[in-house]
Amino acid sequence: MRALPMLSRMHRKLTQRSKAMTTIYNFSAGPAVLPKEVLQQAATEMLDWHGSGMSVMEMSHRGAEFMSIMDAAQKDLRDLLAVPANYQILFLQGGGLGENAIVPMNLMGKRPDATIDFVHTGSWSGKSVKEAQRYGKVNIAASAASNGFSAIPPRDSWKLTPDAAYVHICTNETIDGVEFQYVPEISGDTSGAPLVVDMSSHILSRQIDVAKYDVIFAGAQKNIGPAGLTIVIVREDLLGHALPVCPSAFDWKTIADNGSMYNTPPTYSIYIAGLVFQWLKRQGGVAAMEQKNIAKAKLLYDYLDSTDFYQNRVAKDCRSRMNVPFFLKDESLNAEFLASAKTRGLLQLKGHKSVGGMRASIYNAMPVEGVQALVAFLQEFASQHS
Amino acid sequence: MRALPMLSRMHRKLTQRSKAMTTIYNFSAGPAVLPKEVLQQAATEMLDWHGSGMSVMEMSHRGAEFMSIMDAAQKDLRDLLAVPANYQILFLQGGGLGENAIVPMNLMGKRPDATIDFVHTGSWSGKSVKEAQRYGKVNIAASAASNGFSAIPPRDSWKLTPDAAYVHICTNETIDGVEFQYVPEISGDTSGAPLVVDMSSHILSRQIDVAKYDVIFAGAQKNIGPAGLTIVIVREDLLGHALPVCPSAFDWKTIADNGSMYNTPPTYSIYIAGLVFQWLKRQGGVAAMEQKNIAKAKLLYDYLDSTDFYQNRVAKDCRSRMNVPFFLKDESLNAEFLASAKTRGLLQLKGHKSVGGMRASIYNAMPVEGVQALVAFLQEFASQHS
Repeated sequence: MRALPMLSRMHRKLTQRSKAMTTIYNFSAGPAVLPKEVLQQAATEMLDWHGSGMSVMEMSHRGAEFMSIMDAAQKDLRDLLAVPANYQILFLQGGGLGENAIVPMNLMGKRPDATIDFVHTGSWSGKSVKEAQRYGKVNIAASAASNGFSAIPPRDSWKLTPDAAYVHICTNETIDGVEFQYVPEISGDTSGAPLVVDMSSHILSRQIDVAKYDVIFAGAQKNIGPAGLTIVIVREDLLGHALPVCPSAFDWKTIADNGSMYNTPPTYSIYIAGLVFQWLKRQGGVAAMEQKNIAKAKLLYDYLDSTDFYQNRVAKDCRSRMNVPFFLKDESLNAEFLASAKTRGLLQLKGHKSVGGMRASIYNAMPVEGVQALVAFLQEFASQHS
Repeated sequence: MRALPMLSRMHRKLTQRSKAMTTIYNFSAGPAVLPKEVLQQAATEMLDWHGSGMSVMEMSHRGAEFMSIMDAAQKDLRDLLAVPANYQILFLQGGGLGENAIVPMNLMGKRPDATIDFVHTGSWSGKSVKEAQRYGKVNIAASAASNGFSAIPPRDSWKLTPDAAYVHICTNETIDGVEFQYVPEISGDTSGAPLVVDMSSHILSRQIDVAKYDVIFAGAQKNIGPAGLTIVIVREDLLGHALPVCPSAFDWKTIADNGSMYNTPPTYSIYIAGLVFQWLKRQGGVAAMEQKNIAKAKLLYDYLDSTDFYQNRVAKDCRSRMNVPFFLKDESLNAEFLASAKTRGLLQLKGHKSVGGMRASIYNAMPVEGVQALVAFLQEFASQHS
């Protein structure tokens, strides 16, 4: 009878110690992990930004203080992606899902009867198709539905419309874990149709040649910053072709003409995004980040491929470096797996409800140590249950 | 020669001391001052929310942690405004300006040919008129343009359309400083047209009977929280009448059916709004806040009316308790006035570019001490220049 309270006290101490020692790694698909340094700086500056006596949240968007934050964020993003001078960078609201409507509303004014071509590679491009149908005729130029979105249809299988209004692709499917490893060339099959790309879940994770795209959009809540900010990078000659039903707050030309200040922008989110851009520069920019991301992804895929306890079903040539969905062979262990992972500080590993299983999102801000900790846990859990 | 460095050092010391001692009061029209307690809590919790090991910015919007934040924010707002059970509270993006399009896109599907009635009381309702013309026929039922938006047209002068789709008013014009002090009754002149109200710049500043309105919307960046969050309070039977061109991310019914989680909501802004709602409850709720706002506004207007050095041009029966525009009689002193105010820690007093002059926005989070400091400065500046 006397031993019990002692044991319980010991257990409590051990638990407390292990809790204090556990480093948390957050594998959420988005909103997602942010660099610790960025959060620390945001906390420090919360009540008084640079001696202004104001929080960034309290600043008029038209004041000198916020204007300097906005200008720096735009300039740093332009540097990081080497955005050519004839492309505008816009800061909007509405997320990727909003942009699914905002893109056709902005591009279909010139030729409302033209067809929009889509390559259907997963959940996100599927949502884009559905939304675009409100604003124009839609053609599915290629679809990976028949293989369960586990591979990207080869470029030579795409049936593009010669005079398409534009061609829409999603270069990283967050839910399905497939990623384009090349830029599809479409000029041979269309008469100059713009290439519109949803890069929400891998922008800034790898080097890109912006000039090979015509419109790039991305919700911020993966590699950029807080949810509620949307980035659009658009070639200038594509501005000014909005449908009459396009709200002025989402009309790219109006936004561009007003330096993303036509309506009050999401100021605090832009500030955090700016801190992330500065952090990326300190890490060596996108090129250095890409090398780290290649190494992190290799670590995880190599382990998954080395065992049949877990399974990633995506074709090797289009596996996402950012979002790694995988399944336990014995899915009855799913709940135990997630609970064990949580006690080890490995959070938000549950797969999207539409596909099930698990998913590890390993964005820019996930350190290699997080992936190492995940692989160590995967090995341990597998050996305990084999 | 020797005295100069000493003097300069003394001056520096004095400046530093006065800088350290000056309390900052931020009169920005929005984004605007937030309660200090809220910012302090946000700073403390930035890296680790309630022992979760995550920043709120890093949380999946579908995880238990953020869901609890979302639920509490919705419930607290419902409590604060006593929102009836048959009204939905939606958290969206796009701001008031976005809502100018989103409102007609959501209400005009039932009768696309019906007329929308507007009462034009200032800059904001003017913008709403312009935007609504994309989605339906518009009737200006009354306009204050002829008096320079210095008074609200009396209710009995409004020429409403008997079968109007809806009637839109802005109950506080941020730029012009006019505020409805009553709820206009419209049922006598229309056959049940919904009353749609833009409350962006005075929501939560005074008690309202939500049941007397049909749709209430508000950008968050005045009395609620950071820019990038929009609140819509809508009677349930008005859901489901969207135009086909309404993007699903802005379709109120879709948003309502998905608990404002159809697309990723602006999670961090919702968290800050939730902290503001909790702060409001600790202050005694909206009733207590209204008394404080009446007292603050009286202090400022009483002084402005006591001198001809300054001038507020708004009719006394519709002066805004939130936004107080005023002019110096001698406008050549404007620059000196703003510079002097700034040295006293009184920030962002410049009027909107479209009307000029000065404007003091004295939202919920502006303490009475801020208004006292402003009045003291106004008196001093006037006596120095009279």
